Amino acid sequence: MAGKESSTSSIPNTPLLKDELDIVIPTIRNLDFLEMWRPFFQAYHLIIVQDGDPSKTIKVPEGFDYELYNRNDINRILGPKASCISFKDSACRCFGYMVSKKKYIYTIDDDCFVAKDPSGKEINALEQHIKNLLTPSTPYFFNTLYDPYREGADFVRGYPFSLREGAQTAVSHGLWLNIPDYDAPTQLVKPRERNTRYVDAILTIPKGTLFPMCGMNLAFDRELIGPAMYFGLMGDGQPIGRYDDMWAGWCTKVICDHLGLGVKTGLPYIWHSKASNPFVNLKKEYNGIFWQEELIPFFQSVVLSKDCSTVQKCYVEMSKQVREKLGKIDPYFNKLADAMVTWIEAWDELNPSAKG
Amino acid sequence: MAGKESSTSSIPNTPLLKDELDIVIPTIRNLDFLEMWRPFFQAYHLIIVQDGDPSKTIKVPEGFDYELYNRNDINRILGPKASCISFKDSACRCFGYMVSKKKYIYTIDDDCFVAKDPSGKEINALEQHIKNLLTPSTPYFFNTLYDPYREGADFVRGYPFSLREGAQTAVSHGLWLNIPDYDAPTQLVKPRERNTRYVDAILTIPKGTLFPMCGMNLAFDRELIGPAMYFGLMGDGQPIGRYDDMWAGWCTKVICDHLGLGVKTGLPYIWHSKASNPFVNLKKEYNGIFWQEELIPFFQSVVLSKDCSTVQKCYVEMSKQVREKLGKIDPYFNKLADAMVTWIEAWDELNPSAKG
Repeated sequence: MAGKESSTSSIPNTPLLKDELDIVIPTIRNLDFLEMWRPFFQAYHLIIVQDGDPSKTIKVPEGFDYELYNRNDINRILGPKASCISFKDSACRCFGYMVSKKKYIYTIDDDCFVAKDPSGKEINALEQHIKNLLTPSTPYFFNTLYDPYREGADFVRGYPFSLREGAQTAVSHGLWLNIPDYDAPTQLVKPRERNTRYVDAILTIPKGTLFPMCGMNLAFDRELIGPAMYFGLMGDGQPIGRYDDMWAGWCTKVICDHLGLGVKTGLPYIWHSKASNPFVNLKKEYNGIFWQEELIPFFQSVVLSKDCSTVQKCYVEMSKQVREKLGKIDPYFNKLADAMVTWIEAWDELNPSAKG
Repeated sequence: MAGKESSTSSIPNTPLLKDELDIVIPTIRNLDFLEMWRPFFQAYHLIIVQDGDPSKTIKVPEGFDYELYNRNDINRILGPKASCISFKDSACRCFGYMVSKKKYIYTIDDDCFVAKDPSGKEINALEQHIKNLLTPSTPYFFNTLYDPYREGADFVRGYPFSLREGAQTAVSHGLWLNIPDYDAPTQLVKPRERNTRYVDAILTIPKGTLFPMCGMNLAFDRELIGPAMYFGLMGDGQPIGRYDDMWAGWCTKVICDHLGLGVKTGLPYIWHSKASNPFVNLKKEYNGIFWQEELIPFFQSVVLSKDCSTVQKCYVEMSKQVREKLGKIDPYFNKLADAMVTWIEAWDELNPSAKG
């Protein structure tokens, strides 16, 4: 599917990449939300990562092909390395990325439903993510008509011809209608704000620019970038929560920039049904709000050496810099740096053929 | 108008910045296109820069407040320094920026008409540009819900709080429905392509990222960035055309990045009525298509010293680097470097109070 796509909105008769993509869902409850996604997801394999009490039974609607891992499974499979997988936090989803054997991953939260486009048509989010991943990115120069590989668009006058081949796309970051992904302070200040603006665009986050990657509606090429998609140490026993996807996004973006890979954001939208509790969120985010002020300059200045030729090498190198530069902020970052290394060891153990 | 705006689409009863903004229009023909813009432009002062034969009379619809400069006027006002103003090319528009005494400039081509938004409402392009200029930019970190200062939007989770004040916005780059701004090769390959996609977004081009700035529908803060908006040597007697706005955009973006100013792109749209002749365009662009491959790496690597504390100082410093680094590509760039200095001298002469 190189070059131009045919249509961005039609539901394909044959699901795209049916045998090459896993859908990863972290959850603590019955997956009734899948009923609404049935026409779009049923052809795909699901990896369900059950968080919290492993004795609880999670009901999955009939007809879905899935494997489910609870905490006991994670501990059994990873042994002592299970320490790198968060507990009581949706950061646990990254275990699903590790056990998948597919080329692509789509991950979605269980409070996200099918959104409608302005014409009222249900949006096949997964199809749009796949299109985003299968067309190149443009990280080296901004195109003012957004994704030049979409139908009806192209590179505008003044766009260097040598850059029009683009870069391989590693990440497709989708957005949310209804409840926007706000932090606790903004939730508290604007309890009634809803995102009703449908922006019909996909664009590449330029090289050298960081962004807040949300894990609610996210797809990526596991072969290209999988080992960087570690969602950190969050939740139970940790001094921070709700920075899992952010952490993964900052690490991933730096590594994509280093390896010449692209990150897209924009379409597709999902319908985010309910806001999480802002008081609980504030407690989780509190430390992150402070620490982030030092994390961003850190990630903006990280330089990876030329030897870092695989995602794994980049990631281990980054863990060293985390220890060295962030360890002084709080001992938590030393623990996180250890966990980053453990994560890569566990990844390589489960994925021996793709060892970095 | 700091912080949040009220509505992005309503036509104000009192035109915004009526006494602080000039509309600059380069033209070779009667300005009938202004009839359609009357409800939006009539309250503003127009600066018309007549290109080509100065003996020709340009008709301006009744009721508009304007001043008009033809080539004789430019020669008389600038004397020998008039050599820096292009002839037989819409690059001559930058003379209008120089003679203006206002804080803001909006420039538009005379083949651009009022576009409609998806609801069928006529778009007040100028009002949207003003809103873009009066709200901050976010060049240091990408916001996935686009312009966080628009109504119904904000900074998302993970956006550092220390960066939410944003940067002053210097440039608002608007887009085009119908005929997209394509180069000659793309025009030749896709003669029937029309831009029908209305993307309801404004976003900041991140720091360190270059973009192709089109002069068709462009607004800027003359006090903040005016002297960088030189449209170069194009057209009559020059080996290149159709790179005037691109040149201005690359210089402007580098200087905005250096001075901590923001550049926005996206809304508003205008309706671009007719494609220019691709064969004529190819002849004009031919050299630019080659040269651009060296210009982009040049602009990506330009570093301005800390002493460059004003736009003028930045621009003169850049002219030196143009001579040094680009002069070897073609003697044209030595001539252009000279013209860049002449432009700043002329700017300071006409704008003594804002001398850089």
